[in-house]
Amino acid sequence: MALVVQKYGGSSVADADGIKRVARRIAATKRAGHDVAVVVSAMGDTTDELIELAEQVSPMPPARELDMLLTSGERISMAVLAMAISNLGLEARSFTGSQAGVITDSAHGRARIIDVTPGRIRTALDEGAVAIVAGFQGVSQDTKDITTLGRGGSDTTAVALAAALKADVCEIYTDVDGVFTADPRIVPTARKISRIGSEDMLEMAACGAKILMLRCVEYARNYDLPIHVRSSFSPHEGTWVTDKPIPASLSSDRGESPVEQPIISGVAHDRSEAKITVVSVPNNPGTAAKIFRAVAEAEINIDMIVQNDSVGASGSADISFTLPKTEAQTAVTALEKIKDVIGFERLEFDDQIGKLSLVGVGMRSHPGVSALFFEALGEKKINMEMISTSEIRISVVTRADQLDDAVRAVHTAFGLDAEAEAVVYGGTGR
Amino acid sequence: MALVVQKYGGSSVADADGIKRVARRIAATKRAGHDVAVVVSAMGDTTDELIELAEQVSPMPPARELDMLLTSGERISMAVLAMAISNLGLEARSFTGSQAGVITDSAHGRARIIDVTPGRIRTALDEGAVAIVAGFQGVSQDTKDITTLGRGGSDTTAVALAAALKADVCEIYTDVDGVFTADPRIVPTARKISRIGSEDMLEMAACGAKILMLRCVEYARNYDLPIHVRSSFSPHEGTWVTDKPIPASLSSDRGESPVEQPIISGVAHDRSEAKITVVSVPNNPGTAAKIFRAVAEAEINIDMIVQNDSVGASGSADISFTLPKTEAQTAVTALEKIKDVIGFERLEFDDQIGKLSLVGVGMRSHPGVSALFFEALGEKKINMEMISTSEIRISVVTRADQLDDAVRAVHTAFGLDAEAEAVVYGGTGR
Repeated sequence: MALVVQKYGGSSVADADGIKRVARRIAATKRAGHDVAVVVSAMGDTTDELIELAEQVSPMPPARELDMLLTSGERISMAVLAMAISNLGLEARSFTGSQAGVITDSAHGRARIIDVTPGRIRTALDEGAVAIVAGFQGVSQDTKDITTLGRGGSDTTAVALAAALKADVCEIYTDVDGVFTADPRIVPTARKISRIGSEDMLEMAACGAKILMLRCVEYARNYDLPIHVRSSFSPHEGTWVTDKPIPASLSSDRGESPVEQPIISGVAHDRSEAKITVVSVPNNPGTAAKIFRAVAEAEINIDMIVQNDSVGASGSADISFTLPKTEAQTAVTALEKIKDVIGFERLEFDDQIGKLSLVGVGMRSHPGVSALFFEALGEKKINMEMISTSEIRISVVTRADQLDDAVRAVHTAFGLDAEAEAVVYGGTGR
Repeated sequence: MALVVQKYGGSSVADADGIKRVARRIAATKRAGHDVAVVVSAMGDTTDELIELAEQVSPMPPARELDMLLTSGERISMAVLAMAISNLGLEARSFTGSQAGVITDSAHGRARIIDVTPGRIRTALDEGAVAIVAGFQGVSQDTKDITTLGRGGSDTTAVALAAALKADVCEIYTDVDGVFTADPRIVPTARKISRIGSEDMLEMAACGAKILMLRCVEYARNYDLPIHVRSSFSPHEGTWVTDKPIPASLSSDRGESPVEQPIISGVAHDRSEAKITVVSVPNNPGTAAKIFRAVAEAEINIDMIVQNDSVGASGSADISFTLPKTEAQTAVTALEKIKDVIGFERLEFDDQIGKLSLVGVGMRSHPGVSALFFEALGEKKINMEMISTSEIRISVVTRADQLDDAVRAVHTAFGLDAEAEAVVYGGTGR
């Protein structure tokens, strides 16, 4: 008997039928002899509808009240899910984030979990009930106000709760079959990955694979917690994210012999970044530091940095960096303010870029990966504007309209293509 | 400067426009220099929609989960109302029943308030914010589960919160102008009562006047708290329910000289009751006690009781009593079980009755009230099936289809008719 935490996203509980399907799935797990705690997102479009309602009364709703409003979405889905489970003859009790002991900081709309004290969840499980917990929400340690965790928050709730309960696995149910070697909407021959190590998953998530949020993978890795990403619409197993043996009681396909780590886990891509180039920066020591200090003080996370040493008479260079498109305006404003102090010529802004990353811990011990990678892009005449590498990853920036071709070329070059095409579902939950 | 608690029902906050109108009203009160705490119900049809959703997944949803579900309704309305107030340049903070310190027993769906510990509300008011509190909900003392208070629960929340805060008034905003001398839908010439004593209001509520729930009036009376029932759709003052002078800062119409108590406050009616007659009960001492013990053990509240001493050879009598229609089936079942023990002949059930009550503390010192009352009904050939009186009330049971005529006849006979007809609005909030 294992302790299983299951997370269901909004698309899995979009309507009463979806909730009943999920309830049957939970009941089956419980009847197989496991203890089950469930984390659930708001139903389908609930969150969007609530935001629309807020906009009708206020163009800039206070963050505290927006959190109070949005958290009603999970309150609805969790209570209805508990009812549907009860209707199958099992006891189920729902708990808000606050009741489940999800303690966060006070950053409304993007709160971070500080601690999880799941005393009431443990009691419910010990008494034989299925515990249903509202995803995406918590209560702030200082002010006792209701908070939300921001994008991907329900996954984080599930992983944090599973870690606190010392669960055997955190199952993330979604509308796709698992983690793929590339996005199947771009690469129809992408393969579902049966198993991936936490380090590779971390890089995939960091590089734009949207199926698991970065901080959720980080959390699971820190607590050595296996994640099983799978579809709520199919009975098949999905992708296990773990460095440990897979518990036999939770997997019918495998679990005995650890498979050999492949060289490459997958190809991730990201269209959410933009590039800013600071043109003609005087070549003095400390100038680059001043630029990135200004950006950091605006609380902007930058990704890749490249300095082109131009050999002009002026003794100056161009510095380019990438950052989330949503933060570009803030960065430009911050840099314009120090233009005269630094003495650069101008700023160039480019949001027509794409980023491609090849990820695999196996590449550490396999020289020649970079060469094959660059050859694959070169053959397709794809220009690499920026390059960044780590021990287990190669990332390049291309023109946005060449990104899909680039992903397909690299996927094929590293032998990742499957014989059949993957099945693709639409949408993602929060 | 006074401390004002305002309660807005679901029809007052039915949509974004309604919420904005209510926000302006709250802002005006705050800007007049008062401290304002607001209790709000769920928006319009939200509760019905949530119940419908529950029914889609379970025919008999567990009460705990139904409470969890329904309380999301106030969470939505209070957060959006707080946003609308913020948008007017005032600070507003919303609080769930639990956060506001509304402690109840564990009777899900019909919980009773045990205590209110409004520390967070007091702090918000002291810091100059408008405090918005979810009506209809609390948290159970024993299990820390979310509870709902049942019908009229938001009014009870408002009164209990006002009492705990030692507020100067609890304003109950609704969709009618106040308490009337009779239901204006039946008596178009009914007059709005400017002021009514708590004892009369208690009797009116107990006898079917739906504008304030009985337990809400009881609560206010116990804490000597003035209630002001008024319309959220009009600027006019409504009905003050209090035995004290009306605070001058909260009333523009009056407040200096207490008006003389009228003989009659109003006419209430009730269609929600049924009559059960136990036919041919043996005339032994203790038999009636056994009958009502059985009914009491089924947790049924009975209202009027009449025993007809028939002078038959059998030495038996008929005992009739009235009770809420919704509880009639339970009572019949309980009585059928003791039929042989008691030795009565049969049960008769009648749900085609109506109850009319004339209420007024003034009738204590005015003999002749009963005579005038019976004459008014006699002239209209209305048969009185049961009669019950107290010092300040006369109630009779009539045929249901004669009730409206009876209400009009008594209203006219006691000189309560106004010259103009009252304006009637539809619907009621929870």
